[in-house]
Amino acid sequence: MPPSPLAPTAPTAPTPVPTDAFHVYDTTLRDGAQREGLSLSVQDKLTIARHLDELGVGFIEGGWPGANPKDVEFFRRAQSELRLTTATLAAFGATRRPNAIAADDPQVAALRESGAPVITVVAKAHTGHVRAALRTTLEENLAMVADTVTHLVGEGRRVFLDAEHFFDGYALDPAYALEVVQVATEAGAAVVALCDTNGGMLPGQLADVVAHVGELGSRLGIHCHDDAGCAVANTLAAVDAGATHVQGTANGYGERCGNANLFTVIANLALKQGRPVLPDGNLAELSRISHAIAEVANIAPEPHAPYVGGSAFAHKAGLHVSAIKVAPEMYQHLDPAAVGNDMRLLVSELAGRATVELRGRALGLELDREATTRIVDRVKELEAAGYSFEAADASFELLLRTEVSGDAPRFFSLESWRVIVEHRPGGEVVSEATVKLHAKGERFVATGEGNGPVNALDRALRLALGQLHPGLASLDLLDYKVRILEGAHGTDAVTRVLVATGDGEAEWTTVGVHDNVIAASWMALAEAYTYGLLRQSAVDAD
Amino acid sequence: MPPSPLAPTAPTAPTPVPTDAFHVYDTTLRDGAQREGLSLSVQDKLTIARHLDELGVGFIEGGWPGANPKDVEFFRRAQSELRLTTATLAAFGATRRPNAIAADDPQVAALRESGAPVITVVAKAHTGHVRAALRTTLEENLAMVADTVTHLVGEGRRVFLDAEHFFDGYALDPAYALEVVQVATEAGAAVVALCDTNGGMLPGQLADVVAHVGELGSRLGIHCHDDAGCAVANTLAAVDAGATHVQGTANGYGERCGNANLFTVIANLALKQGRPVLPDGNLAELSRISHAIAEVANIAPEPHAPYVGGSAFAHKAGLHVSAIKVAPEMYQHLDPAAVGNDMRLLVSELAGRATVELRGRALGLELDREATTRIVDRVKELEAAGYSFEAADASFELLLRTEVSGDAPRFFSLESWRVIVEHRPGGEVVSEATVKLHAKGERFVATGEGNGPVNALDRALRLALGQLHPGLASLDLLDYKVRILEGAHGTDAVTRVLVATGDGEAEWTTVGVHDNVIAASWMALAEAYTYGLLRQSAVDAD
Repeated sequence: MPPSPLAPTAPTAPTPVPTDAFHVYDTTLRDGAQREGLSLSVQDKLTIARHLDELGVGFIEGGWPGANPKDVEFFRRAQSELRLTTATLAAFGATRRPNAIAADDPQVAALRESGAPVITVVAKAHTGHVRAALRTTLEENLAMVADTVTHLVGEGRRVFLDAEHFFDGYALDPAYALEVVQVATEAGAAVVALCDTNGGMLPGQLADVVAHVGELGSRLGIHCHDDAGCAVANTLAAVDAGATHVQGTANGYGERCGNANLFTVIANLALKQGRPVLPDGNLAELSRISHAIAEVANIAPEPHAPYVGGSAFAHKAGLHVSAIKVAPEMYQHLDPAAVGNDMRLLVSELAGRATVELRGRALGLELDREATTRIVDRVKELEAAGYSFEAADASFELLLRTEVSGDAPRFFSLESWRVIVEHRPGGEVVSEATVKLHAKGERFVATGEGNGPVNALDRALRLALGQLHPGLASLDLLDYKVRILEGAHGTDAVTRVLVATGDGEAEWTTVGVHDNVIAASWMALAEAYTYGLLRQSAVDAD
Repeated sequence: MPPSPLAPTAPTAPTPVPTDAFHVYDTTLRDGAQREGLSLSVQDKLTIARHLDELGVGFIEGGWPGANPKDVEFFRRAQSELRLTTATLAAFGATRRPNAIAADDPQVAALRESGAPVITVVAKAHTGHVRAALRTTLEENLAMVADTVTHLVGEGRRVFLDAEHFFDGYALDPAYALEVVQVATEAGAAVVALCDTNGGMLPGQLADVVAHVGELGSRLGIHCHDDAGCAVANTLAAVDAGATHVQGTANGYGERCGNANLFTVIANLALKQGRPVLPDGNLAELSRISHAIAEVANIAPEPHAPYVGGSAFAHKAGLHVSAIKVAPEMYQHLDPAAVGNDMRLLVSELAGRATVELRGRALGLELDREATTRIVDRVKELEAAGYSFEAADASFELLLRTEVSGDAPRFFSLESWRVIVEHRPGGEVVSEATVKLHAKGERFVATGEGNGPVNALDRALRLALGQLHPGLASLDLLDYKVRILEGAHGTDAVTRVLVATGDGEAEWTTVGVHDNVIAASWMALAEAYTYGLLRQSAVDAD
């Protein structure tokens, strides 16, 4: 997306962050990886760790070496391959087994052998879980906490304690929950992180508990899940109540509804509460790093994510577009540049001249008054016919370029195409398409088969055009969306097709509208390849 | 203190909700529709309104009739077509223009003419916005509020005031912001909803402001956006501080990062705070209605959404799977059945039975244990292949009937079909379909033309089948939706088609899934007509 020309520069944090006064503790690689469908290789984990370090988090929890062989390998490779500049690695693990000795426990040994300077020990703080999950006594659980923490501290590690199911445990038996915190602190735990493991807390109740536990004098952390949609607010409430260590995950990845989104927490702490939780200037990397981690995780970035989403500062400006242009700060809770994001004015049926001017400027096109009027009229006419340029950045750019130069960028001209789809008597469904087109004075005819009519048409077009433009092979169709627009009846309505295409460096979206879904798909495909070829070489155009 | 997770879950509200003590006000159709890429037809809006009414919200804001011709049509059709049982319709609009008279203002006239019993008037409460966006004086803005509210109250409407940019305005000039609230209340506004229009507030600060404004004695509402990831928590904080009217949108749809997710707010209020904000028993419909609205909006349901997401109670159980099975309440913040969701253990799926039993009972079908198991297995298999029955009620009923009777209701059997779509050298696009089928021992062949392949196929099918079933002529295709499901590449992915059909008395939806969009459409069309014929006459079936 084009950077907004109106955005003033981001204020940078006034001072570097003191390394230990406030902890930003990332658990993407351990708790975040519990997200349904997410699977990270060791290589993925190393790459994500580098991104998190670049952002400037204080701690990166790399995994549970005592439970997962892949995590053993992560810590082994991390020692030789990761050169962290800001972050400290933490290994996660459980207290020793009941009625055993921490020094002899193989799971605890795996924590020591990870080489991580910080060990985060998870312990039960809920009497029901001690009995049902650990199947031991309340006294033995306390001994397990004390022994494990003492042992690891004695081995020269810094130990944090994750008090699992803390808030539910506190509701059931506050004295016991507090005793776990006390025992861990006395054994040498530097932080006790209170965990809302089931994620059901609301900020008010949670803050009361944190404040009460704080009276013990332990340094407290907070670990929240988003099952009530309040993970970020709960984390902030805990900080207000005295916690100085926040746990969360990149983009809020995690089991069920996810963990607290660490990026939202960081931005709120830094920009709303003036806590410099990242090194100087790093906050402006937030959007880029959020998207980079999403790429590694192979999860589409959430466009509506606070601060970092592609839509987070996108305005369907409508009547107020001129006001937004003059005073963007009146329509945004902060300057998007502060988190490395951009304001976007969406081209929509209500928007007008100002949007077109802004977008033209972002593309480096000189638009005079007359051209702007022409474009606004053309956009209105197309939107009335069913087009939507909000998502179709490439089609909009082609339209702007056409109006500025007086001629559409064109790499071929169509003679005809034909698509046949057949459900044969045996039940087999087959699709076949033939495309005939002209380019550079030659005629190209090609036939493609596909598992659907648009796929067949796409293949035929690539075959025909690829003879002249071998670069087409590097273009990839990434997404295809169909939207049926209002009509008198369901199947004779107007159809809008959006096609997302990429060449490994950039992605762009094109739109086609027609009362025939195949014709609409053709239009979007033809623009997708035109835009791709335009990127590859402006001089190729005839 | 938090409620104990070990306590029995989800008490249902002991009494029906008093209609006016607490307002659940939905603005999906107006503010939610500002979401980037979301475009709702009038038909979509009517369908969503029905779903919201079924859920039991108190108010449905239908649109801005003075600004959008489509919204005028919505209110016109709503008067004749919507039969709301719980909800009251609200029309949204602005105060009159500066230096004019409300009674003569065309935009205010459109509000009156909408026929909506409630009018929500948006007003500026921020001095900067009054000057820059309205370009009027602070005094005239107050006059605009007073005049518009007084006029509409005088016309017999209940008036709510949306105080736009309230919190930012309050930060800048608290006296003026309070004056707007006071003036609106004195003019007769029943509620003043304080809007965090830019979405940047955090719960603590927001609650302080709401409490302070509450001292004026006005009835307060709250309208939040999620730009700081705190929209739900902010809404709850406002309620704690005295607001008795909450605004939000289905699934949190809305501009930028979205509005407060009304479904999360409702579940938190009802299940965490014991406020019976929905009619008795309706909360168990929450997940179903959330997904049905997502289907209408053509937005994939968010799997990680609190309460209603497909992953919201999905456990990567790992070591704890047996503990979860024995005591699920120790691992979940509440019983998922309370919101119509299911626990899922990702190692061994348990979902479904209860839903199938409920739906079977609703249709008057006797389902024994074995039939239920068979249906659950079949649904799982189909959903894994891309089917979704949440919106496709008729396809689900056909599936249930097939499993109960051992045979599918069937009015014809297919021999073959073929569709040809051609872009001819002159630019004309033509579609033609031929259908061959057998019914009552006869063979029927028909060819249809249409403005698209599915329309042609529909016409051919109606022609062929109509010879035997003249009643088919009374069936009308109302809507046709295509969703491309995840695949390796855009155009070779699996396609899901939903077809909505009506016969003047009822509407039903069918689903087809295939990697070929035409074949998926055929499946949905064939089920649509099968269901329609089944309604017309059970005895006709052979």
